[in-house]
Amino acid sequence: MSLTYQQAGELTWQWLEQIAQVSETDDPDCNGVTRLCATREHREALEMLSGWMGDAGMTVRSDNGANLIGRYASANPDARTLLLGSHQDSVPHGGKYDGIMGVLLPLALVHYLDHHAIALPFHLDVVAFSDEEGTRFGSTLLGSKVLAGGFEPAMLDAQDDQGVTLRQALIDFGCDPERIANDRYPPGDVLGFVEVHIEQGPQLEAEGLPIGVVSAITGIERHKLSLHGQAGHAGTVPMHLRQDALVGAARVIGLVDELCKETDELVGVVGKIGNSPNGVNVIPQRTDLTIELRSPDDATRLAARETLLARIDATLAGLDLRLDQQLIYEQAAVQCSATLVRRLEAAVAASGVTTRTLFSGAGHDGLAMQALCDIGMLFLRCERGISHHPDEAIQPSDLGVALEVLARFVTDLAEDECRSPGAQGAST
Amino acid sequence: MSLTYQQAGELTWQWLEQIAQVSETDDPDCNGVTRLCATREHREALEMLSGWMGDAGMTVRSDNGANLIGRYASANPDARTLLLGSHQDSVPHGGKYDGIMGVLLPLALVHYLDHHAIALPFHLDVVAFSDEEGTRFGSTLLGSKVLAGGFEPAMLDAQDDQGVTLRQALIDFGCDPERIANDRYPPGDVLGFVEVHIEQGPQLEAEGLPIGVVSAITGIERHKLSLHGQAGHAGTVPMHLRQDALVGAARVIGLVDELCKETDELVGVVGKIGNSPNGVNVIPQRTDLTIELRSPDDATRLAARETLLARIDATLAGLDLRLDQQLIYEQAAVQCSATLVRRLEAAVAASGVTTRTLFSGAGHDGLAMQALCDIGMLFLRCERGISHHPDEAIQPSDLGVALEVLARFVTDLAEDECRSPGAQGAST
Repeated sequence: MSLTYQQAGELTWQWLEQIAQVSETDDPDCNGVTRLCATREHREALEMLSGWMGDAGMTVRSDNGANLIGRYASANPDARTLLLGSHQDSVPHGGKYDGIMGVLLPLALVHYLDHHAIALPFHLDVVAFSDEEGTRFGSTLLGSKVLAGGFEPAMLDAQDDQGVTLRQALIDFGCDPERIANDRYPPGDVLGFVEVHIEQGPQLEAEGLPIGVVSAITGIERHKLSLHGQAGHAGTVPMHLRQDALVGAARVIGLVDELCKETDELVGVVGKIGNSPNGVNVIPQRTDLTIELRSPDDATRLAARETLLARIDATLAGLDLRLDQQLIYEQAAVQCSATLVRRLEAAVAASGVTTRTLFSGAGHDGLAMQALCDIGMLFLRCERGISHHPDEAIQPSDLGVALEVLARFVTDLAEDECRSPGAQGAST
Repeated sequence: MSLTYQQAGELTWQWLEQIAQVSETDDPDCNGVTRLCATREHREALEMLSGWMGDAGMTVRSDNGANLIGRYASANPDARTLLLGSHQDSVPHGGKYDGIMGVLLPLALVHYLDHHAIALPFHLDVVAFSDEEGTRFGSTLLGSKVLAGGFEPAMLDAQDDQGVTLRQALIDFGCDPERIANDRYPPGDVLGFVEVHIEQGPQLEAEGLPIGVVSAITGIERHKLSLHGQAGHAGTVPMHLRQDALVGAARVIGLVDELCKETDELVGVVGKIGNSPNGVNVIPQRTDLTIELRSPDDATRLAARETLLARIDATLAGLDLRLDQQLIYEQAAVQCSATLVRRLEAAVAASGVTTRTLFSGAGHDGLAMQALCDIGMLFLRCERGISHHPDEAIQPSDLGVALEVLARFVTDLAEDECRSPGAQGAST
């Protein structure tokens, strides 16, 4: 019996259900997944993955950053390597798909290739990154930084809530943190890195598409603002003499929303607000808020910042409020490789799906991997854009579509690699 | 040597400084006044006041609501009574003038009258209300409700933070709470109630006036609003698909501010806001806020409410947000007696001060006293409108002005009462 894409998708679905059980159960109210770096759950998940990797004839190894890597080896030991994968860890009380789905789909692909005895002219490594979310140690992108060579040793001193250092946790996990630098892939050996991830947004669902190709990973900047006015009795200070910090904050929130709605490829939010003294009958003295702006195009984001801050200054001056403003975080956008985007688009089209390219508004392991090699990403549609939440959901049949796209991408790349060995992929 | 108004004002200043020391000292960081109902500090303050009352030949009594009443008696034992006074209690970490100044100014007036041997055709009772702020038991206007007959016995079961009931606290203070109903003044016996209070707002200061006459005590309404949107990843949900509760809240804050600025005799504030999940990179799911509207004219306030709620509904519908809205408090405005307003204005003018009538945006003991008799109020200018704060401040020389106005008001009333006995004042 021949294994179809849909059957491989059903296998992936079963694995997803099974590995979702590997979760901290401390919180009885939480029916989501909590699987953090270098924990008992992490070990149990890797054992499960190792078993499935072995079933497909992969050789399995782990590195000193607690990454697990299964290899579907080429007959040519000196062949280069295509990396597919995502992260095994979750946020606290997260969903069943964020990260781990991007490990299991390539694993099911290898089952498909193995079943159909499809040989490749390159090694296909499936990676389960140890830690992307950074929940336990604040160590965002840990696993991919280890593979790509961007790991900062100072990070080993980071502690979890119990005071355990990352160094100690890795040692307890069987790693040798002093040898992490050796775990970098030799750049010239890598064809590229492709990750499949849930979209974590509602666009594909809104357009009725199962899958999309990512053009870029967004740039992000965050600002902290404090607006200083004058507290006062809300009954006795006439309106024209008030310096109401919250009225100013409301204008700022409106300005952020307005600018992002009028600018293409820009999103932004005031997510956090604090008000003082925050009494029903007291004029607000001070209001703190955050502004976040994201764009896949850094020039768009920087121009938006300038416009926004100018508008805010003008508005607050009219309200007699004083502003403290601080840029607290900035991350440039990362472009996906044009070649990989074109190849992934071709694979989508060949699978009978309308091609849709979109940018990622969230950060991903590609941010670290682009230091090593070309990166590409596929987004799978998810329900109502919900993510980082137990309600995270996908359509099971979309897994089969993803497998067809991945298979077409890999086999087309293999054909081209056979025709022109070494011409595919490039380190950036 | 003749006691002048300014000298009586200086005496009042000394008393104010002295009685400000009678304060809880638990909080070493607090240089303000904390003097709550039926506490050691309350007792100590009443002993101090009793001494000063005795010095001016007043007879002193206390009632079962822990009020202190000093009488500057008329020669005619059957004469009616003019009530002057304010509250002895403070908010936590409050100022030196809110309340207590309205006790000490009439007391200094009696010293003045006594010094000049001015006899009155009515009894002049100076009242130190036990509790107006309601800080300890939530028992707002306790003292004035006892005198005016508006005290609800259920209030006796209210507890302070230590679980002590108001009933027990009053018993420990030497009161008999079961006899509170007997402490009401016979309505026909009362000529009226006049209170001097700091403005707690910046209007008199802005106009360079030491004193103003209050026309009405504001009506107040408070609403609680919850705006329900949809949380989401702030990077992945496109702007046009967002249901951002905080963006809606910002519009509401703007609408309240706008409506109050465009409407005469209406003030309003969104003083309190809470946002959830309140993360820098999460679209706000739910934002709670309060709206307070105040006007001395109930019709103005009710019309404003209707306009505001309609505007809010229209705005939120456009943002795809759901609103829960609830009126949580409403207090009608109370008009000061036109006769007393006229008499107080005449006294201000006779003292050489430009007459200024303004409404009180804060609540005062007059709210309770108007059930017993005509009420009138004088506001004394305070610094920058600051109140309920250790920085509360007045100009010492304004106390002399207030004493002249009070003296002229009382002696004019006395002359008219001598001419037409019984024609002055009326219970409402």
